Parts: sequence; C-alpha cells; structure tokens
Amino acid sequence: MSLNVGWRVSVSLTGVVLKWLAVPLCFPLLIAVYYGEAVVPFLVTIAVSIAVGTGLDTIEYEDRLGPREAFLMVALAWFSVALVGAIPFVLAGAGSIAHPLNALFESMSGVTTTGATVITDFGNHSRSILMWRQVIQWLGGLGILVFATAILSQIGVGGAQLMESETQTRDINKLSPRIAQTARLLGELYIGLTVALIAILYGLHLTGLAPGMDLYNAVAHPLTTIATAGFSPEPDSIAAFSPIVQWTIVPFMIVGATNFVLIYFALQGDRRRLLDSEEFRFYIALLALLGVVTAVLLFLDESYAGSVESTIRHSVFNTVSIMTTTGYANADFDLWEAGAKHVLFVAMFIGGMAGSTTCSIKTLRWLVVIKGFRRDLFTSIHPEAIRPIRLSGEVIDEDTIRDIYAFALVNVLLFAAATVFVVVDGARAGLVLSEFDAMGAAAATFLNIGPAFGIAGPFGTYEAFPSTTKAVMILLMWVGRIEVIPVLVLFTKAFWTS
Amino acid sequence: MSLNVGWRVSVSLTGVVLKWLAVPLCFPLLIAVYYGEAVVPFLVTIAVSIAVGTGLDTIEYEDRLGPREAFLMVALAWFSVALVGAIPFVLAGAGSIAHPLNALFESMSGVTTTGATVITDFGNHSRSILMWRQVIQWLGGLGILVFATAILSQIGVGGAQLMESETQTRDINKLSPRIAQTARLLGELYIGLTVALIAILYGLHLTGLAPGMDLYNAVAHPLTTIATAGFSPEPDSIAAFSPIVQWTIVPFMIVGATNFVLIYFALQGDRRRLLDSEEFRFYIALLALLGVVTAVLLFLDESYAGSVESTIRHSVFNTVSIMTTTGYANADFDLWEAGAKHVLFVAMFIGGMAGSTTCSIKTLRWLVVIKGFRRDLFTSIHPEAIRPIRLSGEVIDEDTIRDIYAFALVNVLLFAAATVFVVVDGARAGLVLSEFDAMGAAAATFLNIGPAFGIAGPFGTYEAFPSTTKAVMILLMWVGRIEVIPVLVLFTKAFWTS
Ligand SMILES: [K+]
Ligand SMILES: [K+]
Repeated sequence: MSLNVGWRVSVSLTGVVLKWLAVPLCFPLLIAVYYGEAVVPFLVTIAVSIAVGTGLDTIEYEDRLGPREAFLMVALAWFSVALVGAIPFVLAGAGSIAHPLNALFESMSGVTTTGATVITDFGNHSRSILMWRQVIQWLGGLGILVFATAILSQIGVGGAQLMESETQTRDINKLSPRIAQTARLLGELYIGLTVALIAILYGLHLTGLAPGMDLYNAVAHPLTTIATAGFSPEPDSIAAFSPIVQWTIVPFMIVGATNFVLIYFALQGDRRRLLDSEEFRFYIALLALLGVVTAVLLFLDESYAGSVESTIRHSVFNTVSIMTTTGYANADFDLWEAGAKHVLFVAMFIGGMAGSTTCSIKTLRWLVVIKGFRRDLFTSIHPEAIRPIRLSGEVIDEDTIRDIYAFALVNVLLFAAATVFVVVDGARAGLVLSEFDAMGAAAATFLNIGPAFGIAGPFGTYEAFPSTTKAVMILLMWVGRIEVIPVLVLFTKAFWTS
Repeated sequence: MSLNVGWRVSVSLTGVVLKWLAVPLCFPLLIAVYYGEAVVPFLVTIAVSIAVGTGLDTIEYEDRLGPREAFLMVALAWFSVALVGAIPFVLAGAGSIAHPLNALFESMSGVTTTGATVITDFGNHSRSILMWRQVIQWLGGLGILVFATAILSQIGVGGAQLMESETQTRDINKLSPRIAQTARLLGELYIGLTVALIAILYGLHLTGLAPGMDLYNAVAHPLTTIATAGFSPEPDSIAAFSPIVQWTIVPFMIVGATNFVLIYFALQGDRRRLLDSEEFRFYIALLALLGVVTAVLLFLDESYAGSVESTIRHSVFNTVSIMTTTGYANADFDLWEAGAKHVLFVAMFIGGMAGSTTCSIKTLRWLVVIKGFRRDLFTSIHPEAIRPIRLSGEVIDEDTIRDIYAFALVNVLLFAAATVFVVVDGARAGLVLSEFDAMGAAAATFLNIGPAFGIAGPFGTYEAFPSTTKAVMILLMWVGRIEVIPVLVLFTKAFWTS
C-alpha cells in the first residue's frame, strides 16, 4: 500500500507552526521574570518547540498543499500545539493540571478556544501559568481565523465545512489578491480589536470603575474575549468584576463572533455590507431573542433574586457568552430554573457567524438549513418547481446545501454519541451524572463552548470526570474546533491511498 | 385570498374513511355483547362515524388528488379517526381515559400505532374497551401500509418522506398495475400475517404452553404486533405470558417492520429479493448488534439478576420491540443500568424498514445517510470526483439524498424541541422529570414507540403528565406518524394559496 498523501508538506508546515510557538511563549516567560515566578517551564517549552519545530521543518517536500495535505496539517497543527502547550502546566507541577492528562485537557481546551478547565484551585497557580492559558486561547482564535478561513479556503476545498470561507474569499480577494496579505489583514484586525479592549478595560480601571481589572487582568481577558474562548485567571470568571466591565465585554464577545471580513469593511466605512448581510441580521436577532427569553424566564422565577439591572445583565451576558461560544459567566447559571438553562443549552448549538473565531454550528449554516427546509416544504407541494436558495442575494449551490444539512446532522449525531459515552463512562466510574449535565458537558467540549452545567458548571471544573471521559473530551474539542471533516476524513482508507 | 387547494376531495375522502370505520367498530361491539358489557359506547360511535362520514362524503368535488390534497387528506384522516376513536373511551366512563383529553391521547396513540397509554388501572376497563384499543392500532398499521406506502406514492410526491415508496412502487407495479390492487395485495398480506400469529398463539395456548393466552389475548396481541403498535390489554404487557410466547412474538415484530413488498415476493418464492436487499441486511445487522450489546451490558451488570436464558430473552425482546417501534415489553427496562437504557433510547431513532408498518426514521434513511456521509468524506478530498450513491445497485437521486438528510435533521430538531417542552412544562406544573425521562417520553411519542423511561416506563403510564404536555404529545404522535412533512406543510401559506 503506497501512501498517496503529501504528508511531508503537512508535517513540515506543522513544524513551522511549532517553531513560531516559541515567540508567544516569551510572553508568560516575561511575566514569570517580572513576578519572580518559575521560568524553567517556559524555557524548556521554548526549547522543545524550537527543536521539534525546526526538526520537522527540515523535512523536504515537493508536494502541493492540496485538500488532503491541508486537512492533515490543520489536524496535526492543532494537536501538536496542544501537546507542546501542555508542557508548562506539567513542569510547573502545581495543582490538578500538573497531571499530564489534565495538562493536555487544559491545553487542548485552550488552543481550541473551548475554555473548559480542569483547574480546581486557581490560587495554586502562578500568574505566568494562568497567563499562558490566556495566550494559548488567543493563538487558537488567531489560528482559526487565519488557517481555516483564509488559507484553507484558497485551496479550493468544497463543501459545507468551508462554505463560509468561499463567500468570504470572494470578497476579500477584491481586497487583496494574495493569500498572505489576506491572512495578514484578518490578523491585524484581530490584534487591533484585542488591543482596543485592553485599552478600554485598563482605562476603566484607571478611572476607578473597574477595581479588580488591573493591567494583568486587563490584558488577560481581551485575549480570550476576541477569541470567543472564555478562559479567565479568576475562578469566578467575569463575575469577579464590576457591572460596567461585564457590560463592556458583551459587545466585544459579539464582535468576536461576527464575520471579520464584514467588520473590516465596516471599519473602512462600508457599513452597508454588514447591515445588509442576512446572516448578520439573523445572528443579532437570535442574540436578542435568547437574551429576552432568558430575562423573562428569570423575572418570572420567584426563586431567582436579583435587581432589574442585574437580572437583565445576567441574562444578556450569559446568553451572549454561550451563543458566541465564548464561555465566560457573570452568574452561576447552573442554579437557574429549567427553562433558562435550556435556553443556554440550545444556544450552545447555534454559535456565531462564519468567518469569525466562533465555534459550534454557526448562524450561516442554520440560516441555510431554515431556508432549505422552507424551500423543501414548498417543493413537496410543487414538485416541478425549481427554487434556488439565496443568501444576501446570491444563489447557494445545491451541493453546498446538502453538505450543510450533512454537517448539522453529523454534529448532532456525534454530540449524541458523546453524551452517551459521558453518561455511561461516568456511571462505570461511579460518577452519577444527570443526562442533562452529561449533554451539557458533551456539547460544551465538542462545540467548544467551555462551561456547562452541574460539576462542569460555570464556576465548576471538569477535573472530576473519569480519565477516560477526559481523554475523549480532548478528542471532542479537537474534532469540533477544526469542524469535524478534516479529522473524520483521516480515518478513511481513501484519504491515504486513493 | 382564494384557496388553491382541492380541500373538497380531501374532506370527502376523509368522510369515506370515517364511514368505513363503522365496520371495525362492530368487533368490540360483538365482544361487548358476548361478555354482557356496555354496548352503548360502540353503538353511538358507529352512528357518529356513519353520520359524519356520510355527511362529509356527500361533498362534491372535481379536484384531482394532487400532492396537497393527499397531504391534507392523510392529516385529516388520522386526526378524525383519532377523534371518533376516542368516543367509546369517554362514553364507557371508566378510569382515566373517560376524560376527553386522555381519551384522545389513547385514541391518537392507537391510530398512530404509538402504544403510549394513559390507563392507570387496567382492571377498571371492560374487555370490549380494551379490545377497541387493539383494533384501532391494527387499523392504524393498515392505514400506513395502504395510504402512505401504496396510494401516496402513486401521486408522484417526491422527496424523502415517501422515498421508500418510490422503490417499492416500481417493484409492485410490475406485480399489479392498478393502485387498488396494489393496496389490496399489501392489505391481504397484513391480514394473513395477523391471522397466522393468532393461530400460532392460540395453538400454544391449546397445547398448554401459553397459559394466559386465551382466545381473547391470542386475538388482541397479533393485532398490535404486525402493526408494530404495542398496546396490550395486560398491564404487564408481554411479561404476562410464558417465555415461549415472548420468543414467538419476536420474529413477528421483525416481520411487521420489514418491507411488505419484499415479504410478498419472498412468500411467492422469490427470496433473493429480500436477502439481496441492502436495507434488509442493514436492518437485521442492527437488530443483532443492539441485542448483543444489550445482553453483554446486562450480563456485566452485577445488580441485574437473571438466568442466561431470561437475560438473553429480555435483551432480544426489548431491543427488537423498541427498534421495530412496537413498544411491547417483557421486562421493566426502566430499571436497567444506564448503558442498556441508552441502547434502547438510541434504538428508538432507528426504526424498521421503509414500506412496513414501522415508525421513526427508518433503516432505509439511515443507510442513505451513512452512505452519503462516506461519499461526502471522499469528495472532500477529491472535490472533482462524482460518486453517485447506490442502494441495492440502483442510483439514488441527489435531491432525494438531500431530502433524507433534511428529514433526519428535522426529526432530531423537533425531538429536541419536544424534549425542552416536556421538561419545562413539567417543571411548571410541579412534575420533576429527569432530562433522560423527558427525552424518552418525547421520543416515544414523536417517533411512535410507546413506552419510554421513568413514569412513562414500560409498565407505567403517561397519565401523570400535565394536560398541556399530553396535548402536545397528541400532536407529536400525529405529526410523527404521517412523517412530519404532510403536517408541517399545512402551516405554510404557500400550501393554501400558491
Ligand atoms: K469557548
Ligand atoms: K409503537
């Protein structure tokens, strides 16, 4: 059996990624130096990433980066960054994340922008280690923006998993004809938004409006806001900060889950493109709907105590956080009544806009699914009718519609399988999980949300899950973040030989 | 706004169905006479069905029975038979089903071959009333076989909801060129299988092998076995009978959920058609797999006490019962450990073969979904490749594949919405339901399985659900049985005016 995949190019490019990982690793290293914390974990990791990265980079290749090579590279890159990213946690040797499996869980949760944590006591960990969690999430968000939406789309990979990029590519190509420039534009926008939020949060702190938001926190949180990622060095997440900080973060979570190309054009003065986008209107309408429904449910719930402002703030913040797949919390929504918890659970499956750092199924796909269903109902009574589906005026290819149906279905089925595994494996290990909590944990990892319900609640930890469950969740986060197909396809014989 | 649907033909044909309902109503009437029970409930219902049926039948029409008229007729026919079928329960005035909402629940559960019951005390009810439940299920199974698979398919309705009928139609058309004859062939086969099981069960009774299986029971159970429907006059369902009865019923549930056209050919001596059917092999393989997995889980479970024979019997019987959507039970599987319960839960979504009396999503659609996914993975790495999907050698149209994806997805989404409603409405009414029990009850009604878990367990009752939940479940059973689209489409404006 001869391999028919240009794995050399994939492995070599993964080496480049690993080599460059040394640069962001310098940031927690500097923090460790500043606070007089252990520097060895970062020095060793920098050495490993340069050594392994350079080693892999020397592999010579003549292969073209086709769809297969790109899938393999993305799968390898995310997994190997998670592996290297786990090293500082192990070497620091503190708390639950010193255990290799937990370290890999935390690191994979980082690079996939999931935000599920296995930390049990935040006080155990140094500031540099907690900042590394934030940095790795920011890198994960940047990676998705640049690799998945800018580069992969250029290779002509069809199908639903990159459908958003096709629309985007067409627009951005007018902007800039070269891949590298496209990627740079998106990256600069990402950096700019991060810096803007840092400035605002630290400004609030300097004016006395945000007591806990010192420079450390004012840098740490924007890194995981724009990335819709959700880690926080604070055990109480955003509940640790004043209401004005919470309200400030809301629009930035929304921006993080908005198509970056549309943001780019809006910043260039072309706001019509954003406002005319059917997906953007659908996305904003869903955010508003979920927020209002949650607020109404909490107001109606007599056991829920809160002022009008705090009830609205809790409703808006947490629905925005979950639907954008950020995963911050400003209240322990695990204590909410059944209806409000179910709103959050449903929000997990929605996600933000394609072409952003958001995870989950995404509003673009759901919009196509809804339009498709409506069309299919029409053609069931008019079998002869031909009704193409349009999005913001442009016809969507029927194969793409079929692929989007398939994507939504495969996500739901994998989620269901993951739930069964979580609940059955828990029962085996003596961890009694309610079905709802198991569903929440499965969705929160596979769809890269972060917090869920029960032990995995917003102020909880995934540490208590059995090792087997945590190992499977590591795979779920990985598979979910790179949109399933690039991983599933690796397990087909055709991938390697045809 | 002028109506553009030939509703007169739909209503008139519904009248014909109602008129003919008087004939099967004579059967419980005769039983009431024989046992000296109340005959008024049946006499009144016969009068109503003849009066209303004749009234509607006199509506004159010139319309052709197109897709829309067929959808409307099927939706109306199932709902109006459920309404008329509920009358005897109300008039008999005994127990929980005397309440109109409960009566409609029981009747809808009957005619949709669901088998979910709101009866709390079987001893309260006369033999004639309990037999009417059985008869109405048998009629529901016959209705699905004749209407949905033989008649609707002839109107040229495309799409997934009737995809199975297209394959079937092509074959049966070689058999018999006329619709009426096609329907009659399927109906005769259905009757023949029912009579065969009656003879076998009563034969077992006469030879002393089936003590409780008197003539009444030997007639009552085959009516709901071939219909994959699941009502039993016994509160303990099939657990009330000897192991040999239980083993005898297993192959008949399997037959009830097998494509009747293939059974017909097999009985004519052409067994290759059945054995060469990819769907049949997939169906049997899944049944075997689920049975084996369940047996292994029960054997491994130390808290489960049972002999080797009874463990295997319980595993095989209940997995076959749930996957074929029959809904009989010979053990209280609600007490099983989490893994085995999840196997049954997953089985609910599978269903039996298209072209049978089975409900749920059906093995044909899952087979197409699996083949479609595999093909989509292949084309994701070979975007230029064209790979049609074949089933038993024949190419499946791409539009049909898309419609099947859509059908599976819409079923899963409606199930999820139903679950949220059941759990939230329960919480509102003070009924604390675990998420798993709510999912089970939602799936068991929407997918027409019957029993689920918790209060809706195999030896339980749906009576304790709030009235609002029961009302929604009545709609779920109706929508689920006629495969969603004929009902959903009624709520579009295009249906009535375009
Ligand atoms: K997240
Ligand atoms: K049933």
